[in-house]
Amino acid sequence: MTAPFDAIDVIRAKRDGVGLSAEQIRWVIGAYTAGQVPHEQMSALLMAVFFCGMSPDELAVWTQSMIDSGVRKDLTSLGRPTADKHSTGGVGDKITLPLAPLVAACGVAVPQLSGRGLGHTGGTLDKLEAVPGWRADVHEDAYLAQLRDVGAVICAAGNDLAPADKLLYALRDVTGTVESIPLIASSIMSKKIAEGADALVLDVKTGSGAFMRDPDDARTLARTMVGLGEAAGVRTVALVTAMDRPLGRSAGNAVEVAESVEVLAGGGPADVVELTLALAREMLAGVGRTDVDPADALADGRAMDVWRRMISAQGGDPDAPLPQPAERHVVTAPATGTLTRLDAYALGVAAWRLGAGRARKEDPVSAAAGVVWTAGVGEQVTAGQPLLELQTDDPARIPRALEALEGAIGVDTDDVPLPLVLDRITA
Amino acid sequence: MTAPFDAIDVIRAKRDGVGLSAEQIRWVIGAYTAGQVPHEQMSALLMAVFFCGMSPDELAVWTQSMIDSGVRKDLTSLGRPTADKHSTGGVGDKITLPLAPLVAACGVAVPQLSGRGLGHTGGTLDKLEAVPGWRADVHEDAYLAQLRDVGAVICAAGNDLAPADKLLYALRDVTGTVESIPLIASSIMSKKIAEGADALVLDVKTGSGAFMRDPDDARTLARTMVGLGEAAGVRTVALVTAMDRPLGRSAGNAVEVAESVEVLAGGGPADVVELTLALAREMLAGVGRTDVDPADALADGRAMDVWRRMISAQGGDPDAPLPQPAERHVVTAPATGTLTRLDAYALGVAAWRLGAGRARKEDPVSAAAGVVWTAGVGEQVTAGQPLLELQTDDPARIPRALEALEGAIGVDTDDVPLPLVLDRITA
Repeated sequence: MTAPFDAIDVIRAKRDGVGLSAEQIRWVIGAYTAGQVPHEQMSALLMAVFFCGMSPDELAVWTQSMIDSGVRKDLTSLGRPTADKHSTGGVGDKITLPLAPLVAACGVAVPQLSGRGLGHTGGTLDKLEAVPGWRADVHEDAYLAQLRDVGAVICAAGNDLAPADKLLYALRDVTGTVESIPLIASSIMSKKIAEGADALVLDVKTGSGAFMRDPDDARTLARTMVGLGEAAGVRTVALVTAMDRPLGRSAGNAVEVAESVEVLAGGGPADVVELTLALAREMLAGVGRTDVDPADALADGRAMDVWRRMISAQGGDPDAPLPQPAERHVVTAPATGTLTRLDAYALGVAAWRLGAGRARKEDPVSAAAGVVWTAGVGEQVTAGQPLLELQTDDPARIPRALEALEGAIGVDTDDVPLPLVLDRITA
Repeated sequence: MTAPFDAIDVIRAKRDGVGLSAEQIRWVIGAYTAGQVPHEQMSALLMAVFFCGMSPDELAVWTQSMIDSGVRKDLTSLGRPTADKHSTGGVGDKITLPLAPLVAACGVAVPQLSGRGLGHTGGTLDKLEAVPGWRADVHEDAYLAQLRDVGAVICAAGNDLAPADKLLYALRDVTGTVESIPLIASSIMSKKIAEGADALVLDVKTGSGAFMRDPDDARTLARTMVGLGEAAGVRTVALVTAMDRPLGRSAGNAVEVAESVEVLAGGGPADVVELTLALAREMLAGVGRTDVDPADALADGRAMDVWRRMISAQGGDPDAPLPQPAERHVVTAPATGTLTRLDAYALGVAAWRLGAGRARKEDPVSAAAGVVWTAGVGEQVTAGQPLLELQTDDPARIPRALEALEGAIGVDTDDVPLPLVLDRITA
């Protein structure tokens, strides 16, 4: 059979600013996924998209074609509303860990298909793997059973979920076409829509540690994704949130699990609690459950119960001690005054270099590596007090982590921290 | 050994408008040619170049790196000045055929490494292959001997001439990155500089049948190529010439050989003679031979002598009858008046569809296929007089050729033909 389109014509049309037809988009995504359009043609098309963008109509078809490369899950058999959250990634962003059991404790099922970290931002699955015995891979049947019985699953996405995205993401990664709002939006939303939840809350990070450093870019990405979700029948809201400094008091794997358990126990850093509750309220509102207050489920231990059952269901021991690092290195406060700068990107890179993250997809991560800190932005510190603790299995990693931290800490500087939630974007 | 650069960083730098360093360019061209940078990364880089261009410094290094992927020939052992011409391609552009022997007859050796046609523009080698026995492939030793003994060679380029260009051209062809002035200029000039001639004349076509339809684009390309040639120590001049109508009275293979022989015999269409002489004078001037008039060498038969010896040296029989078509179809003039439009692109496509050209590199061409016409733009025609003759081996090809010609002929329209030579560009 002759192909209905020629990839060169599709590339040239996009390159020359001519809109692509729905048929062209469906064909090129399908043919690429099927191996009929070679990588070099798709990478040229992606670079043309980088420069020329996509119209809302093009992007909706592009995203739908990515969804159609796999299956869109149907969770109606659960007989319960479903809601999910996606974060564009940040440093110390462990929110999914307390959030999923919290929302499940409020009666809304949370089907959270997650990814792994790459670069300076951590991955939810990497963090949970610090829990002894916990497995990221859950078979389809067990997945539905766990959603029904426990109410929350955090696990790896299967190959049937937007396989076009898996290919496109790997290609973008090596061809300098990652930083394109339509390509980011379609990558995220194809997976999230395919996941089958009724409602979706997007946490779009902005600041030095975020993918979108500029708040306006973050808003544009948020609006683009909200539009895609709503067009696909998913109730979608986005919060644009601060990532100029890291979230909470830890960045790494085991350290973030420990902090999440503190939150579920009713404690934990104020910003993590605040953002967890804000996102929980959005998820509940997305499925019409404005009648329940998630703060109650945190306070009375119901969220912690779901956490323990969720961890156990995936082979983990919620009571097992978490891995501890072989080496700890303390960085002290450089001056007395208000901590005005704790740069998210620098801390993320430091944690990454200590072993918490990976440079390539196939690299392992260290469960025990990371950074914890004793004060957050806006708090008082005293010169010489312990401020950061670098944790690693390999002391040879410490010097490069310290390099990353140069200039990252500021006392009484004129940095103005972003509000925790900058904006709320709805359709 | 670790690569000194990461291709992603090179792509991102170009994409973000940051200049590439000479080291980055040398590395990426070398590593791509060696198969160490994959096609999908190079195609993304080419698309970024399409959008962001290259500075003169970047382009000079890019071109030199392409030359350095092979050998730059040394023709000093000839003990004679050398000059070459390159045309960006047009319809009915047989100028190389009379030009090479003409310049050789004036004492300047012409090392013309040529290509084949693709699409609606013909290729010099395809045309010459209409001469029974003539071979495009000439071994290196025979090449130098023929340059010494005959003074002119028109043959296929070997694999040692800018092999990076062979790879890049094939990649550009399938990734929508052909139409980029720096990429076109570096492709042409890397091969022409590597050829080793002392002087180079560029015939940059503009108009409907040319690659650069817009005269300003043609001028930009011409200036870019002249700059590259001069930077590499080759005396380079460009003429920007008309390709709104085809050259001469024929487009095809055998028909263009026949017309070239007419020119060498002292006859032929006025525009072909004029352009051949203009280009010959530039080639001679490029090596300081302003003392000889090529018109004399045409008039007294010396150019024809060189032609005959050049054809014979490559196995051809200059006296053999040329292939004749199985089918001829006449198109008559639609009205009486001045022929004001004879569209080059339409005639090129018609000749191509009759079999004179190829759609893919591996396709054969028909020696006998083509179009001849009895009047050129600016001449008087009478309604009903035979104007075009379509020639083909396969009568089934005629209807689609006629389709291509719809609207191509105009009598007393307000079309204003371009001057034959629009501009002369020097360093």
